[in-house]
Amino acid sequence: MPHRPIGIFDSGIGGLTVLSAARRRLPAESFVYLGDTARVPYGTKGPETVLRYAVQAASFLVEQGVKMLVVACNTAASVALPELARRFRLPVVGVIEPGADQACRLTRSGTVGVIGTEGTVASRAYDRAILRRRPRARVLSVPCPLFVPLAEEGWGEHPVAEICAREYLAPLIEAKIDTLVLGCTHYPLLKPVLQRLVGPEVRLVDSAEATAEVMASMLAADDAEFAGDRRGDVVFHVTDLPERFRRVGRPFFGAELDQVETADLATVAGRYSARAGRGLR
Amino acid sequence: MPHRPIGIFDSGIGGLTVLSAARRRLPAESFVYLGDTARVPYGTKGPETVLRYAVQAASFLVEQGVKMLVVACNTAASVALPELARRFRLPVVGVIEPGADQACRLTRSGTVGVIGTEGTVASRAYDRAILRRRPRARVLSVPCPLFVPLAEEGWGEHPVAEICAREYLAPLIEAKIDTLVLGCTHYPLLKPVLQRLVGPEVRLVDSAEATAEVMASMLAADDAEFAGDRRGDVVFHVTDLPERFRRVGRPFFGAELDQVETADLATVAGRYSARAGRGLR
Repeated sequence: MPHRPIGIFDSGIGGLTVLSAARRRLPAESFVYLGDTARVPYGTKGPETVLRYAVQAASFLVEQGVKMLVVACNTAASVALPELARRFRLPVVGVIEPGADQACRLTRSGTVGVIGTEGTVASRAYDRAILRRRPRARVLSVPCPLFVPLAEEGWGEHPVAEICAREYLAPLIEAKIDTLVLGCTHYPLLKPVLQRLVGPEVRLVDSAEATAEVMASMLAADDAEFAGDRRGDVVFHVTDLPERFRRVGRPFFGAELDQVETADLATVAGRYSARAGRGLR
Repeated sequence: MPHRPIGIFDSGIGGLTVLSAARRRLPAESFVYLGDTARVPYGTKGPETVLRYAVQAASFLVEQGVKMLVVACNTAASVALPELARRFRLPVVGVIEPGADQACRLTRSGTVGVIGTEGTVASRAYDRAILRRRPRARVLSVPCPLFVPLAEEGWGEHPVAEICAREYLAPLIEAKIDTLVLGCTHYPLLKPVLQRLVGPEVRLVDSAEATAEVMASMLAADDAEFAGDRRGDVVFHVTDLPERFRRVGRPFFGAELDQVETADLATVAGRYSARAGRGLR
């Protein structure tokens, strides 16, 4: 059986924190990463639009021959997972369920805070995923629209990040959460600031790490995990501005982004819509 | 001759500051506004992508029967103006030239600061437009990526905006600029903070107001300005999330956004590419 890669996609660079966690957890696996940088961000866009983009991105990765599809964008995972699982015959993992699962295992009081983009918070995907596991939990979600631009500006630990975080998190601290879900793949870059603000007794759930754990257990269950000790490869594709991706993405991935190629989703999606006999507009 | 509207487009809501200035300057004119909210922002995207989007947006407005096309997005104006003027047989106005023109009229020392998105600054469109008029000017441009999210968050006068502005503007203040061009249609919402930081002796150029002046003079020259005293209409189209547009856009427009419709650019653009016998991908 050939060594097929795992496909990961995000609206841009945020998903690199998921890829990074997955590489640490599954060093022998190879990965194909797709960042839809021509249409980033998804967080301020509507569900139909995000679903259309997600199907195009997934189609591209499936054409690359991936054995597993990881939706490393909270907004896309919150609206597109069932449709992707229906369309493509391979395991599909999102970032919401693993984060919600870990939050439910960590919380003692049952009062859980969730922070994310406007789109993710409005979708209430984390609230639903947590309440499904723990119906008596109290979930408080707040959107933090400035965290993504702050992380991309490299200001994740800048004083400005702390002022913004203090304002955004005030209602969560007030409500005495004991667990905080970082419901956006950009937010790991603000971890030290967030931990300082909520205090050491509040547990942070990094959905990138939680997702890597789920990927590992699914691969093991499937008996498809690559057993060799060769380090896997990573290839990056973006829909726009590979140079910016390389520069801004470095701290998200934690290493140089060597092989970045430009992808054209319009063509792939056209083929897929036609093949499926129906288009998503 | 029928009372044809003026078409204005932007990647999202920023262009509403241009529409607002144009409404004040030309109250009897009617307007069709298009915000490409499904793909906002353009500022972090590459020139080819932005050009493709701009042609689609302009095609949509031309189909609405507009008599003039206003590119109220600095990023789009910096890359797409010549192509739009070539493709469509109607006056095309961008926001760059009017702002550059006013800066050259206002500066005494010839040391001009320009602030904008990464895309606008990287295009050097303001630098070129100013140096063409005043070859011995000294132009310093800095990107301010956090200003757009701050303005959209309604934090244009928040302490965070002041800290960010202090950091971004430091090299311009150091260089003793006497004129500062707000090279992004979102930035008028940060005007009080910016003016306070650079001091009262530095002149701010609001490209929205400069553009409205140019529109007025082109209409007068063309003898097409509507002479009646009825107040013109405004219709808004967005490619995604009309509700968010209405809520976030209000402070940019300075009034309620009543009639917001959803537009599908993909169909329009398809027709246009076919008609022109060539596509922009």
